[in-house]
Amino acid sequence: MKSSKPALYTSLSPALLHLYDVSSSIVVIIDVLRATSTIATVLFNGAKHIIPVDSVAECIRIGKQIEGITAGERDGQIAPGLVYGNSPFEYPKEFITGKTLVLTTTNGTKLLHMALERGAKGIITGSFPNISAVCDYLVAKNMPVILGCAAWKDRVNIEDTLFAGAVINRLKDHFDINCDSSKLAETLYNDAAPDLYEFMEQKYASHFQRLSNYGLQNDIRYCLTPDSANVLCVYEGGKLIKG
Amino acid sequence: MKSSKPALYTSLSPALLHLYDVSSSIVVIIDVLRATSTIATVLFNGAKHIIPVDSVAECIRIGKQIEGITAGERDGQIAPGLVYGNSPFEYPKEFITGKTLVLTTTNGTKLLHMALERGAKGIITGSFPNISAVCDYLVAKNMPVILGCAAWKDRVNIEDTLFAGAVINRLKDHFDINCDSSKLAETLYNDAAPDLYEFMEQKYASHFQRLSNYGLQNDIRYCLTPDSANVLCVYEGGKLIKG
Repeated sequence: MKSSKPALYTSLSPALLHLYDVSSSIVVIIDVLRATSTIATVLFNGAKHIIPVDSVAECIRIGKQIEGITAGERDGQIAPGLVYGNSPFEYPKEFITGKTLVLTTTNGTKLLHMALERGAKGIITGSFPNISAVCDYLVAKNMPVILGCAAWKDRVNIEDTLFAGAVINRLKDHFDINCDSSKLAETLYNDAAPDLYEFMEQKYASHFQRLSNYGLQNDIRYCLTPDSANVLCVYEGGKLIKG
Repeated sequence: MKSSKPALYTSLSPALLHLYDVSSSIVVIIDVLRATSTIATVLFNGAKHIIPVDSVAECIRIGKQIEGITAGERDGQIAPGLVYGNSPFEYPKEFITGKTLVLTTTNGTKLLHMALERGAKGIITGSFPNISAVCDYLVAKNMPVILGCAAWKDRVNIEDTLFAGAVINRLKDHFDINCDSSKLAETLYNDAAPDLYEFMEQKYASHFQRLSNYGLQNDIRYCLTPDSANVLCVYEGGKLIKG
C-alpha cells in the first residue's frame, strides 16, 4: 500500500545532504546553537531581513554596500572583522527593528547555500524558538521535507538531531517517514524531552562544552526554549524574511 | 586536564569517515545486517579465511583462481553470478571448516577498503555475535578507536548505530569520548537494550523491513544476539582471519 503522505527525511550532516532528493523538497536548515535560533529572534524582533553569506569577507563587503549590520561567528566566537556575533541576546527589539543583518556562521549558512545549489523547492530555518511556526508551515505545505542538520564541521551533533526529533515527534502522523536517521532523532528527542538543557549537560554535548566554556549558558537555555521567538523564517531572493 | 585515555569516535556513515583520524586508529567495521555478523560466524565455524572484495566480478575472478567459495549480496539478496549469500546460516561448521570465502557486500566491504586506503593502524570487524571479542581486543590494544558504521548506501542506519552504542556502553570508562555521534549511539542503545529485536521491529528500521520482506526474521534475530560466534576477526594482508 503506497502512502499518500509526503515523505520526510533527516540529513544528520551537510556531508549527507546529497543522499536526499533536495530538488523536490522543502529543506529546513537546523543550526540550534546558535545560528537558526538567532535568525528567528532577529526576525521576531522586527529586523527587515537577514542576508546569509558564506564568508567573513563577503559579510564585510555586503555590510558596507547596504549599510547593514555585519554579524557572525567562527568556532563559537565573533569573527574578526565583524561587529556583532551569533548570540540571540545581541538583537533586542529596540536595536534591530527595521534593520538589515548580514550574517555568516560556521555551519548554518553553508548548509543553506548547499540546499540552494541543489535546487530545493523551498528553504526555511528551524530552531526551538520557532518550532511551532516551522511545524505549522510544513503541515500546511503538505510537500516532501528534508530536515537538514547543520552539524559541526560535518560532524553530527546532538542539538540539531534533537530539534529534528522534536519536529518528527509533532509531525509524524502527517508524513511518511521511512528513514532511520529520523527514527534515531525522535528516539533521542523522547529521551531528552523532559529537560533538554539537562540532557545536553548530562551528555556533555561537544558544542555545549564549547559555549559553556565561553560562559554562554543563558544562550544555550534560550536556544532550547520552544516558541520564544515563534516566527516563520523563509529564504527568498537571497534573503531570510518573516514568512 | 588532558585525559590519558585513547580517543574513541563513531562514524555513522562511510560518507563521514574522512572526518576522523583514521591513520592513527583501529577501525571497527560494523555491518550488523548481515556482513560482519556472517564474517564472525564463518570464522567461528572454522573457515581458513575470508577475502573481502569490492565487486561481484572480482569475487568471481578470485573465487575461480583460488577455488574459494564466492559469496555476497546486493540489496539484501544473493548477487547474480555468486553461489552463496550473506546469511550466517549458510555457513555451518560441516560446510565451511578449512575453506576460503570470497565475499562482497553492499556496504561492509566498501567501508573496509576505505579504512584501508586511509591507512588505518588496524582493522577488525564487529557485530553482536562477536561483541565481547571486539571489546576485549580494543581494551587490550589501548589505542584510538573509530567505530565505523557501514550504514546503507551511506544513509545512517539503526542497527549499526546500535552496535556502536553497545560497544560504547561497555567501553566508555576505558576511552575518552568527546563525540556527539557516540553519545547519540549509546542513548539509542540504552533505549533498545531490553530487547534489540523488538526495538528494530517497533522502529520499523529500513533494513529490518527489507530483510523481513524476504522472510529473514531468523537472520535478524541471530545478528542481534551477543556472542553467538565470539571470535576476533582481524584484517591482515588482504584477508580476514581469526585473531
